[in-house]
Amino acid sequence: MSTQSQKAYLAGVYHHDPNFDINSDVAKLTKISGFPEWLPEQRMAEEALIDKIRAIFRSHGFCPIETPAVELLSTLLNKGEIDKEVYSIKRYHAKDVDEAEFGLHFDLTVPLARYVAQHFANLSFPFKRYQIQKVWRGERPQKGRFREFYQCDIDIIGRDSLPIACDAEVIDAMNMVVMALGVGKHKVRLNNRKLLLGIYASLGLSEAEAKQVVVAVDKLSKIGKDGVSRELADKGIENEAIGKILELTDIRIIPGEAEYILGQLEVKNRSFEEGKSEILELLGILSDAALAHLEVDLSLARGLDYYTGSILEMVLVNHPEFGSVASGGRYDDLASRFINKKLPGVGVSFGLSRFLDLAFSEKLIATDRKSPSQVLVTVAAEEGRKEANLLADSIRMNGLACEVFYAAPRLGKQIDYASAKGMRYVLFLGEGAQLEVKDLKTKEQVKISDLEGWCRDVLGGLS
Amino acid sequence: MSTQSQKAYLAGVYHHDPNFDINSDVAKLTKISGFPEWLPEQRMAEEALIDKIRAIFRSHGFCPIETPAVELLSTLLNKGEIDKEVYSIKRYHAKDVDEAEFGLHFDLTVPLARYVAQHFANLSFPFKRYQIQKVWRGERPQKGRFREFYQCDIDIIGRDSLPIACDAEVIDAMNMVVMALGVGKHKVRLNNRKLLLGIYASLGLSEAEAKQVVVAVDKLSKIGKDGVSRELADKGIENEAIGKILELTDIRIIPGEAEYILGQLEVKNRSFEEGKSEILELLGILSDAALAHLEVDLSLARGLDYYTGSILEMVLVNHPEFGSVASGGRYDDLASRFINKKLPGVGVSFGLSRFLDLAFSEKLIATDRKSPSQVLVTVAAEEGRKEANLLADSIRMNGLACEVFYAAPRLGKQIDYASAKGMRYVLFLGEGAQLEVKDLKTKEQVKISDLEGWCRDVLGGLS
Repeated sequence: MSTQSQKAYLAGVYHHDPNFDINSDVAKLTKISGFPEWLPEQRMAEEALIDKIRAIFRSHGFCPIETPAVELLSTLLNKGEIDKEVYSIKRYHAKDVDEAEFGLHFDLTVPLARYVAQHFANLSFPFKRYQIQKVWRGERPQKGRFREFYQCDIDIIGRDSLPIACDAEVIDAMNMVVMALGVGKHKVRLNNRKLLLGIYASLGLSEAEAKQVVVAVDKLSKIGKDGVSRELADKGIENEAIGKILELTDIRIIPGEAEYILGQLEVKNRSFEEGKSEILELLGILSDAALAHLEVDLSLARGLDYYTGSILEMVLVNHPEFGSVASGGRYDDLASRFINKKLPGVGVSFGLSRFLDLAFSEKLIATDRKSPSQVLVTVAAEEGRKEANLLADSIRMNGLACEVFYAAPRLGKQIDYASAKGMRYVLFLGEGAQLEVKDLKTKEQVKISDLEGWCRDVLGGLS
Repeated sequence: MSTQSQKAYLAGVYHHDPNFDINSDVAKLTKISGFPEWLPEQRMAEEALIDKIRAIFRSHGFCPIETPAVELLSTLLNKGEIDKEVYSIKRYHAKDVDEAEFGLHFDLTVPLARYVAQHFANLSFPFKRYQIQKVWRGERPQKGRFREFYQCDIDIIGRDSLPIACDAEVIDAMNMVVMALGVGKHKVRLNNRKLLLGIYASLGLSEAEAKQVVVAVDKLSKIGKDGVSRELADKGIENEAIGKILELTDIRIIPGEAEYILGQLEVKNRSFEEGKSEILELLGILSDAALAHLEVDLSLARGLDYYTGSILEMVLVNHPEFGSVASGGRYDDLASRFINKKLPGVGVSFGLSRFLDLAFSEKLIATDRKSPSQVLVTVAAEEGRKEANLLADSIRMNGLACEVFYAAPRLGKQIDYASAKGMRYVLFLGEGAQLEVKDLKTKEQVKISDLEGWCRDVLGGLS
């Protein structure tokens, strides 16, 4: 777009330009890469999925919280590499150039830690919360990676200590969410940071080296064994240790064999023993629904440095291109930056926007309804509008979404409208309040004598 | 907080500081004025209200959309005074200081106009959408005015033309929302821009002067008649005209008398005639539920310059301090900045955060539940946890939200937890799967032989 046409646009005169072309200029001008925006039929599917996820979280007793999009930059910019992705905000017309002291949150975990510290006196512990919100990251956008996206998080925060039963609870609940996606089999990959660090220590690595190994192994699926090997050699890790580290990443254990196979590793140190005991305790509590999809996967490392115990990822078996749709783990010390208390936690996060983007493009989720309306009430003449509105209100009272046609053209045009928006039923109000309905699916048209009964039947058929 | 303790905080060492005091330092550090954040029990009420509002919007056939928080600054910064309140965003570590080209949306109307233009080819018209999202404004925070807040908008956008029936539809739907708030009587104040501009023209004012009058009259409730009078005099409006303009602001008309009283004004010009005819047509279509609360109020002006027809506000009769809880109107030309099409629209916006803030502080909304859980399953000993989890899953399958106690201390402690979180029922799993329930409200404890039946009874009692 030329500077001149840009100016014309900003001056709001585009509708006077005879060369204006909706298919090129508008789209080019307004699409902001990395900020997904769905069509109504996609947003309908997104809302339905959020409702389903929320219902699962609530059924497990997680309470809702929502934090502002905005945090103090000092809250967001701690250690860790993620700080480079923060968006800062300031008033556009701020006079003080240094005004920027706020940023948009890049995840829901840091805001949770700050929330728990700030509202500590008003919360009941263990504090179980769900949080379904957008987060922002100033990353380079690419397929499946956004700069604005939804996360759906559950976490349990304890005072001083938190039983492994809570690890089981977040995994069980998120396992139900992934089952509810309706996109085929999934796998729960489980590991434990203490177990990993114990193994690395038994290879003679220092604590600092062991942490570097975690970061390198986390990249396995991206850079392969060769890549991990090179990265470890660069850090000065001995070849023999590298060989053993890579061997380890081949180990997958079904729940029933975990005790035996972890025992075979013959590692003897406290970190390993604790990790092993935590995994075994967790496997003893998890629901059969989760265990059926679970394997202990010693290649799972999770890059973030705050994990201290269980770590996990959920992946779709038939859609490896989705990567991990949910992930999380146990952290002992996330809120101590904000409060002089020990508040260990465990949580899992589901990446909704990324999942939906792929599910839409692979047509895994139906998007055939452009409107929530199930019923259109037609209007034969404007004089009948008020009566039609009254009828629509009765239909709404009986639980169906309904609209009245906005004008009174020939009925064929009104039926086309209902059809275009995916409504199934079209109602005609005749003389003496006589009512007929056309079912656009079966093409049948019948009289309705009992409106309440008819609504009940439709509702029953829909549920 | 000193620079030194600030540094200590940022270094994450606060938990080593013996002088750390949760009640002062944490709160001072983290509370960001103007960005409301609710406790879980308040967020439960907010979610319940959003669900209710959404159900009303959907029942009227409005479809959901959601736009990114972020728009191009060129989209946000058009004419109008609101541009000074825009927050711009940029990557914190951006090298290019001029990078800022994005801003946070300050309402949902500009994003809607951009959305309709951008997705024009994929939408069915009239396009009826609801949008429930946060918006951001860099205003000075004060009681009831936030920098981040929820708006709940419905709009109908037509192609080329849009019948007055659509004005009725958005008003009827929003009228149901305000009734559903459960905070007593409300009033719908209705006026029409064409009617007002016609009257001002009949007083000899130019179109530009008439628009200045609209802006001044809009401030009536804030600055009073004297203030409006001074402002009009400053603009060079004659005293006689000012007198008539102020007289006009005293006129309130019940629907049944609108035709007669508007006729009495004896204004003869096209703008007035059109406005009058639009009002009368609208009054002929609106639901009785809306008409019962409605008055034509000639003091209503609405400051925003894009309104071209109906304008309205909804206020709470017993809570004038809430101001207008919902407001909106008809605009003919909002999207023409973005697209070479005539797309008239009509919409109403409900200010959720502002309403909730006042409703919470005046205790108009119950916030007695800290958790969605209705049932706690107790755990007598850790060996019984898996069985307790299975029981909880059955309860969830039967529609109740349920959690299992996270440890196995004495039962009294578990009951205290249920009570603190507002759960009514506590279940005990005894020998041979024998089940008992304690109702914390009635204090009764009984055996459960038929779990499904019991869940159904509880659900029935709750609904």
